[in-house]
Amino acid sequence: MKKIINNPADVVKEALNGLCLAYPDQLEYIPGAEVISRKEKGDKVAVISGGGAGHEPLHAGFVGKGMLDAAVSGNVFSSPSPDRIGAAIEHMNAGKGILLVVKNYSGDIMNFGLASDLADADGIEVETVVVKDDVAVPDSTFSTGRRGIAGTVFVHKIAGAMAEKGAPLSEVKRAAQHAIDNIRSMGMAMSPCTLPAVGKPGFSLGEDEIEIGMGIHGEPGVERTSVKTAKETAEILLDHILADYDYTGSQVAVLVNGLGGTPLMELYILNQEVQRYLKEKGIAVYKTLVGNYTTALDMTGCSITLMKLDEELKELLDAPCDTPALKL
Amino acid sequence: MKKIINNPADVVKEALNGLCLAYPDQLEYIPGAEVISRKEKGDKVAVISGGGAGHEPLHAGFVGKGMLDAAVSGNVFSSPSPDRIGAAIEHMNAGKGILLVVKNYSGDIMNFGLASDLADADGIEVETVVVKDDVAVPDSTFSTGRRGIAGTVFVHKIAGAMAEKGAPLSEVKRAAQHAIDNIRSMGMAMSPCTLPAVGKPGFSLGEDEIEIGMGIHGEPGVERTSVKTAKETAEILLDHILADYDYTGSQVAVLVNGLGGTPLMELYILNQEVQRYLKEKGIAVYKTLVGNYTTALDMTGCSITLMKLDEELKELLDAPCDTPALKL
Repeated sequence: MKKIINNPADVVKEALNGLCLAYPDQLEYIPGAEVISRKEKGDKVAVISGGGAGHEPLHAGFVGKGMLDAAVSGNVFSSPSPDRIGAAIEHMNAGKGILLVVKNYSGDIMNFGLASDLADADGIEVETVVVKDDVAVPDSTFSTGRRGIAGTVFVHKIAGAMAEKGAPLSEVKRAAQHAIDNIRSMGMAMSPCTLPAVGKPGFSLGEDEIEIGMGIHGEPGVERTSVKTAKETAEILLDHILADYDYTGSQVAVLVNGLGGTPLMELYILNQEVQRYLKEKGIAVYKTLVGNYTTALDMTGCSITLMKLDEELKELLDAPCDTPALKL
Repeated sequence: MKKIINNPADVVKEALNGLCLAYPDQLEYIPGAEVISRKEKGDKVAVISGGGAGHEPLHAGFVGKGMLDAAVSGNVFSSPSPDRIGAAIEHMNAGKGILLVVKNYSGDIMNFGLASDLADADGIEVETVVVKDDVAVPDSTFSTGRRGIAGTVFVHKIAGAMAEKGAPLSEVKRAAQHAIDNIRSMGMAMSPCTLPAVGKPGFSLGEDEIEIGMGIHGEPGVERTSVKTAKETAEILLDHILADYDYTGSQVAVLVNGLGGTPLMELYILNQEVQRYLKEKGIAVYKTLVGNYTTALDMTGCSITLMKLDEELKELLDAPCDTPALKL
């Protein structure tokens, strides 16, 4: 295993600490709880997200003005405990309520749910939205219902912008859910990832083989097939998305996301094909993000996310944000 | 070869076009010349850089307010022709002069030099600075003298900020050279990269082997050795840098750079070790960047860059910039 790490058991805490050390004026790291939070608590609804590590910059990289107030990390590909989530809630609670943005994985649903119940019992108002943007499969290895993947970044942006405006919890939740309702994603993997604690790839793909619809933990997709061109990749992934949700005639935000081991050059090329195909389909692109936003350790591959926009979502998407991984 | 591309012969133009399509309001793509430029020409010195492709986001990803006015791309790992560079100069010339920021590779030195001479003959004032930040080896496969690597990003930032202030060409050049004089870098590779047109890795490293000091085109480094921990990696690379330039007692900007295939989690962990070691050495960190800024296609590995700061460089480093790959 070739990784720039120390002890495999320490990768999560060391990565969070290392992130925090790059932004000492903006971020705070709470060791043990494995929470990255904004240094200043706002007099506002706090938006908190989190989940397993290994998807960097998700989630901690999106902590900052206009996006998340805190991110809680579990171990690699493993949900954070209710205790850790509770620590984040307690730390960022300003009395205006908490919105939890949870990706739809059974462990996360259970642990964020327990933490929410415990906070409720302490008199903290907590609401939750669940991101399930991956159209690949109806149920998956670790989820009942669709998986939450890169579309989560848009949910962080929309919820964070609404909270930053000083909106009440009910409004922040409504906006986040409105974003979720309009977001769909689908991905493709070209090589497996290696968990630091395991030391070898979790599965294998042939020399010329890729998997369409694979999850960000290596969960099965819809098809193993031969390597596709960028054009074919864009069309296959977008066809799945468009078959699920009719974006025709609407304006969308696009996220062309890399899975960690795929260089930016390839994502730029993929973006060319995504933009071309959306134009062909009569879908107008309002804003595009291209980069590694939601990864799966060193997995190579990509995902494409669309969010249908109305005036409210456009305004919230355009609102300034200042986080390590996204600044607008 | 598993890459998200179409025809290997088209990767450069398609990547530039794909980048431009993500920023249609800010960037312009000049096909044939393979130039990405700012959409609006400023009434100011134009800062232009470029070189071979395959180092994305360098160079085109740093085109925008406060950094580059244009970037010229050659083929993968191959210098742009004087014609292309001339097209960028002509396109962005506002009569205030042009600063060319060139990495020290023989092809780039020759072609940017020829383009500069041709522009001079056309009455356009052109000055050039050469980035040679890599302390690994005194001469290399494609360079007489040290190679230019990730430190180039800081030079773009400093020169761009000075130009944005409306400073004359002589001042923009002086500031860029001042940055160069205070920048040192060193890298390490864990796996080779695959050129799209070749289809297989350019060299091989053993299962447990890495190469200290390897260049961003796979040029030989100083030592092949076994995989190191993040702590050892930080210390080895920084020891080489500190042996070359005495940063003790000074404030520095740090760039912890990934080579394209290395996920952010590992770069965060490396940053922890870099920050710790610099503190031990009595070097104060003023600003840190962590991410994939200067890559080598899908190569895995990293580089570390330090820039010693004085008040002028701090002010220029802190000045706002708005480019696809860096926004401050």
